[in-house]
Amino acid sequence: MTTGWTRQHILSLADFTPAEYDSVLQTAEGFRKVLTTRTKKVPALQGAVVANLFFEPSTRTRSSFELAAKRLSADTLNFATSSSSLAKGETILDTAKTYVAMGATIVVVRHNRAGVPAAIARELDRLNAGVSAINAGDGQHEHPSQALLDLFSLYTLRASEAPREFLRGRKVAIVGDIVHSRVARSNIYSLTAMGAEVHLAGPPTLLPREFLDLLDASRSQQVFLHRAVEPAIDGADYVMALRLQRERMSANLLPSLREYRRDYGLGRDRLRLASPQVKVLHPGPVNRGVELSSEAVDDLESSLILDQVTSGVAVRMALLFLVGTGKLTEPI
Amino acid sequence: MTTGWTRQHILSLADFTPAEYDSVLQTAEGFRKVLTTRTKKVPALQGAVVANLFFEPSTRTRSSFELAAKRLSADTLNFATSSSSLAKGETILDTAKTYVAMGATIVVVRHNRAGVPAAIARELDRLNAGVSAINAGDGQHEHPSQALLDLFSLYTLRASEAPREFLRGRKVAIVGDIVHSRVARSNIYSLTAMGAEVHLAGPPTLLPREFLDLLDASRSQQVFLHRAVEPAIDGADYVMALRLQRERMSANLLPSLREYRRDYGLGRDRLRLASPQVKVLHPGPVNRGVELSSEAVDDLESSLILDQVTSGVAVRMALLFLVGTGKLTEPI
Amino acid sequence: MTTGWTRQHILSLADFTPAEYDSVLQTAEGFRKVLTTRTKKVPALQGAVVANLFFEPSTRTRSSFELAAKRLSADTLNFATSSSSLAKGETILDTAKTYVAMGATIVVVRHNRAGVPAAIARELDRLNAGVSAINAGDGQHEHPSQALLDLFSLYTLRASEAPREFLRGRKVAIVGDIVHSRVARSNIYSLTAMGAEVHLAGPPTLLPREFLDLLDASRSQQVFLHRAVEPAIDGADYVMALRLQRERMSANLLPSLREYRRDYGLGRDRLRLASPQVKVLHPGPVNRGVELSSEAVDDLESSLILDQVTSGVAVRMALLFLVGTGKLTEPI
Repeated sequence: MTTGWTRQHILSLADFTPAEYDSVLQTAEGFRKVLTTRTKKVPALQGAVVANLFFEPSTRTRSSFELAAKRLSADTLNFATSSSSLAKGETILDTAKTYVAMGATIVVVRHNRAGVPAAIARELDRLNAGVSAINAGDGQHEHPSQALLDLFSLYTLRASEAPREFLRGRKVAIVGDIVHSRVARSNIYSLTAMGAEVHLAGPPTLLPREFLDLLDASRSQQVFLHRAVEPAIDGADYVMALRLQRERMSANLLPSLREYRRDYGLGRDRLRLASPQVKVLHPGPVNRGVELSSEAVDDLESSLILDQVTSGVAVRMALLFLVGTGKLTEPI
Repeated sequence: MTTGWTRQHILSLADFTPAEYDSVLQTAEGFRKVLTTRTKKVPALQGAVVANLFFEPSTRTRSSFELAAKRLSADTLNFATSSSSLAKGETILDTAKTYVAMGATIVVVRHNRAGVPAAIARELDRLNAGVSAINAGDGQHEHPSQALLDLFSLYTLRASEAPREFLRGRKVAIVGDIVHSRVARSNIYSLTAMGAEVHLAGPPTLLPREFLDLLDASRSQQVFLHRAVEPAIDGADYVMALRLQRERMSANLLPSLREYRRDYGLGRDRLRLASPQVKVLHPGPVNRGVELSSEAVDDLESSLILDQVTSGVAVRMALLFLVGTGKLTEPI
Repeated sequence: MTTGWTRQHILSLADFTPAEYDSVLQTAEGFRKVLTTRTKKVPALQGAVVANLFFEPSTRTRSSFELAAKRLSADTLNFATSSSSLAKGETILDTAKTYVAMGATIVVVRHNRAGVPAAIARELDRLNAGVSAINAGDGQHEHPSQALLDLFSLYTLRASEAPREFLRGRKVAIVGDIVHSRVARSNIYSLTAMGAEVHLAGPPTLLPREFLDLLDASRSQQVFLHRAVEPAIDGADYVMALRLQRERMSANLLPSLREYRRDYGLGRDRLRLASPQVKVLHPGPVNRGVELSSEAVDDLESSLILDQVTSGVAVRMALLFLVGTGKLTEPI
């Protein structure tokens, strides 16, 4: 590779370039190979400190970033709100700057408000700290590392076709609570950038007609909106179910779990509408029997759900590596 | 050593073989020596990931497994319920599989329901994951690593006698809330397997007559049940007090702490009934002045309580090593 | 250096000697250089285990000690009350001894009651454990590592003057809730020991006249008490604002945040009374707009607040190193 990585922070996929997708996918592929070796570690980020600033609790994403950092030989610091001085009134920016002053070279940020990782990134730039911020999920805005690991899971399935073409013309269905989903938003960016057709399906409260207006013109031609789930998954190569947050029900955005399951739940019968080689994705954790039948979750042939988790470590190693070293060398 | 270790999971001591006890004790002894060296580490599990899945909070057991893993050069991931996506409705099996998909090679599981570690082990086997599960305490069922560290603490006291004979014919008293104790249950298995006589003492609500019926015939000849504490500890070589859970009182299983202490609490006077060389064990944390007098806890001559904690790290290193490498080589 | 370090525990600065301050400052300076190298680590404490026993929650102090330990190649164990067996009734001393039995060679203790770290240290000595205790903040008593990092931040600013003289005759103002502040108490010890004049300012409820009587005669000549903030900061070389605990208000020790800010808050106007080269310190986290204006916090010229955090890692490395190795050798 001769192209260097130049992006300091990973906050959104809205303006990710094809070359950047390539870099992430190829670097992650290198690391996925490292993970099959005996020691599973590379010294790439020795001396670096990855601070996981999770203002919103999360098990899997934090553990995934933590393990990715350790396998790059970085040290990790974990901050979680409950045990924090935010209880003492500290501002979010001050928390982040404190960890940077302590020595953090990369901060991984999750917050239930959109824009917090970007605000931290701006402050780090203002201070000329040379520190990178990675958005690990901000409100209903974006979850770039999730969409990139989804993409990587699909990438690893590709046959011999040219690497950049593995999604061109493919049909991807995303089903569920689209409007509140940072996972959906980031995936729409990545999937359209790679040339896929994205078909969204969900009830009107969770997928309003106006949703399409939020997309820029170049993408909106690749995105289709459906009220019923059947046309969305009809012939789809990939089907991604989104997690249903139970709090949507108490907010009266959903009639009942039973109705949701009846109209949008994916089981064997509905999935038969998709391509015979369909692969099913879910960002996890799954509400079994709601978004997906248990059978669909556990199907060894079609379910990519555990593979997504495995891909997550390799992709997060790639992201930490790229922003942490700023260069595209062979990992190892 | 020529015998290899074949057990994939450590869930129960009910069917542990003499050769397996030997392997654990001898491997732990090797590691206890490692712990006296300057760096205290061996590279045995480099690249392995030990995930501590503690669905029930615990300080000492989690820290003990964590330190054991680090000293084998494994990486560790900690999951605790409070900060977990179980709040989000994920099933326990999905949590475990997620950590395995992330790269965990051994999962250490604690749960307040009996059978959870075994259910996880079955699922891992079904998936052919090649991953080991270790039961770190499941409900009122078993706590194998605790009983093995108790055994190792006694093993390290042995004189020149043949290693397999160090408990043969010895009298061990276990006092307290037997029926609810996973520690007692695992200890009954290990102590009888090693040839000891086990004398149980506790109030009828905490040690019903029917308890003996649960034991298989071969063991039940070595287990004796007492309503009063005195005959149990009379001449005993080892006395193990169990922790009294305060919730037993609110469940009306206990009249009052004062009565319990009067009838079953162990202090200097009662312990004089035991062998002059008696050693006192407790799984910790102790309710000082309830199960044991402070004097008994702190007696440098007879109390093994802190030694049990030290043994815990060596024994857990042994367990992680044996299931993690599946072979009995010299540690180092 | 030929002088060896002899202090086993770091509990209080009340009797710290000039040679000890020297040792800490010079060792920290060595480590601050290590932190500018690529790997940022030294093998000095390989095999050591630092147990962070935080009976009172804290983000920054725990993370700072944790990172300091890792950079000395020690292993770390974290204990926090919420997930602890203290819930189960274990005594504090038993918790500490359990971690020592597990292998901890240094325990770092924070507790909201004064004297807990010292009680643990006494118990460790009684047991001849060879283990060091470091006070990471005990009630309203002391916070030695904070005062030492404050001192180190000032030390790194010194010009060519003799190292021991960098504070001689300097005026330091400490403003706020003096009487409840462990930070103030430790700083009064360190600053007077280094020859500074310490000017305290705060409302009568938070700085009673009797406060001075608590100081021994030799120091009390260097400490001055002010009801108004202006004479305290007039011409001051260094101004330290203390954190205002909001619980003081509910305890009726403070009329209102607005009045406090009006009378003791430090902004651009008040700070103009100080030396033109004044440096502003705060132990963090800052209540912006209460103790300090945001402008004062963020002033790149005068604010030392982030530098204090950076100094914290180097100073805590020094403390762990000095008690952990008991000798003054060149780090590396």
